[in-house]
Amino acid sequence: MTATVTPIRRATTPSLDPIMQLVAADMNQVNGVILARMQSDVPLIPELAGHLIAGGGKRMRPMLTLACAKLLDYHGTRHHKLAATVEFIHTATLLHDDVVDQSGLRRGRRTANMIWGNAASVLVGDFLFSRSFELMVEDGSLRVLKILSNASAVIAEGEVNQLTAQRRIETSEQRYLDIITAKTAVLFAAACRIAAVVAERDAAIEEALDQYGRYLGIAFQLVDDVIDYESDGATMGKDAGDDFRDGKVTLPVILAFARAGEEDRTFLREAIEGLRNDDEDLARATAILHATGALSDTAERARHYGRRAIDALAAFPNGQAKSALIEAVEFAVSRAF
Amino acid sequence: MTATVTPIRRATTPSLDPIMQLVAADMNQVNGVILARMQSDVPLIPELAGHLIAGGGKRMRPMLTLACAKLLDYHGTRHHKLAATVEFIHTATLLHDDVVDQSGLRRGRRTANMIWGNAASVLVGDFLFSRSFELMVEDGSLRVLKILSNASAVIAEGEVNQLTAQRRIETSEQRYLDIITAKTAVLFAAACRIAAVVAERDAAIEEALDQYGRYLGIAFQLVDDVIDYESDGATMGKDAGDDFRDGKVTLPVILAFARAGEEDRTFLREAIEGLRNDDEDLARATAILHATGALSDTAERARHYGRRAIDALAAFPNGQAKSALIEAVEFAVSRAF
Repeated sequence: MTATVTPIRRATTPSLDPIMQLVAADMNQVNGVILARMQSDVPLIPELAGHLIAGGGKRMRPMLTLACAKLLDYHGTRHHKLAATVEFIHTATLLHDDVVDQSGLRRGRRTANMIWGNAASVLVGDFLFSRSFELMVEDGSLRVLKILSNASAVIAEGEVNQLTAQRRIETSEQRYLDIITAKTAVLFAAACRIAAVVAERDAAIEEALDQYGRYLGIAFQLVDDVIDYESDGATMGKDAGDDFRDGKVTLPVILAFARAGEEDRTFLREAIEGLRNDDEDLARATAILHATGALSDTAERARHYGRRAIDALAAFPNGQAKSALIEAVEFAVSRAF
Repeated sequence: MTATVTPIRRATTPSLDPIMQLVAADMNQVNGVILARMQSDVPLIPELAGHLIAGGGKRMRPMLTLACAKLLDYHGTRHHKLAATVEFIHTATLLHDDVVDQSGLRRGRRTANMIWGNAASVLVGDFLFSRSFELMVEDGSLRVLKILSNASAVIAEGEVNQLTAQRRIETSEQRYLDIITAKTAVLFAAACRIAAVVAERDAAIEEALDQYGRYLGIAFQLVDDVIDYESDGATMGKDAGDDFRDGKVTLPVILAFARAGEEDRTFLREAIEGLRNDDEDLARATAILHATGALSDTAERARHYGRRAIDALAAFPNGQAKSALIEAVEFAVSRAF
């Protein structure tokens, strides 16, 4: 392996194309597993699950499993089923998230809970979650089972933690980082780590890929938090200002609340508590977030984690896989501009 | 082993006391695991989970694991963690069920969704479900993992199947049996079967215990269906007529609809479709269910499955454990009178 330092910026606009091309053949296999294993004699299950699974997601998590397997020059097929497992866990989480948040729009389409109701979304989420465990049990690696069952428990714990932080303007930056680590970064980390397990690499390799996924996950979420205030439904694929209306205390809000004057702090507190959440309030909140530098500094925090993700790959050999994984990070952080 | 046939009726009133005494010491260990493993740094998790877990459930499923282990003369401790696993799966299911059914009362107490809201119930259910997988992965038996992950997927599938059958008066008896097998009997079967795995017994023993649990589970559910029309909130610990008001097509309704005259059939259809669901309607429905013999015949169906559960134990040696398992069946079916 050759140690290497790669700059976070490049001349051309970073994109997910290289990583998508890298794993395209494998992803076809993964999609086959996903389609086959979301079937059921109960028609509502493939119908509802298919709405979300076929609904234009980027398949970031399975893509990471596949790309990390490429990085390790793995030539088997176990990672296809495991990548599908990771996507099922993620999809189950999204179904439940949309019920919890009462969301109406995701990836530019109506959410499953709006079409089929909360009950169906809860239960089909449970099905996909159970199915994900069946799939990983079929793989039969206790090490993989431990990684993914632990990730699932941490995700659920993070979801509850976020729920109890909801509408609490005093949430600290550290608590917020803990929440997004649990909710988002841990599954990114697990998706990458399991590639090392199937490729039968040592603990240091496992750990390095875990770090890559974890930091990328944090960066991804922080950029999402910025975009929620900077975009609109058409470009983002979900309702703009959703976080604001749900009283979600994301990092931009935490930074702005710490920095703003008394009047704006009062406004932000009332907004997060749900007393001010119309379009005009959203515009004012966005203005405060800009004026305090909260949005640009959240983006800078995201770039910090992006750099750490890239550094975690330093010991891996240069090549197509490593370049694609690095550009995926650069793409993630570039979305905030 | 001595083949034996035991009558379904006994002179004294059957009770759960013998099985509870049989497993009392082991159940203390199981309760210790449950309490330890429902903890979290997020206070809402043990608070909400504890409300249901400490809320006076009979711990039927872990009790079955422990009693079956006794029947097989197992002297290890692996079944403690696995019995806790089964209870976690069950508890997660209850939390989600109450959200789906919008229930207000369970085991004589307000439901978690009424106290903490649907979002918290969904997410803490997810946590318990994930935690159950962590626990079984710690046990490390792929055979157990396969049994319990499959049971979880079947339960979730059964829940969705039930949801789509809701308010459909034409549901067939067979579809209904499929639903309750998936929703209830499969976890009873798995709870019993895993005792054979930890005791390292052969496939025939596994299968016999699976059958015992499965038929007991069906009997249990059918009796619950009868009780829902024959009891009141105080004795049953949940709202009487809940099934009726939710438009749940249970076996008593299926039998009554098949047997009733045109006028009563129209009434039942409208009731199940949600057009007639006040107290007076419930009284009329109950009267129809009595007059058509639907309630007594559902109880007879329950006794049929009870007899099959007891027959599944025929090849096991007589003794305290077998007697207790038989009396548990007799208790289950006796509740309908």
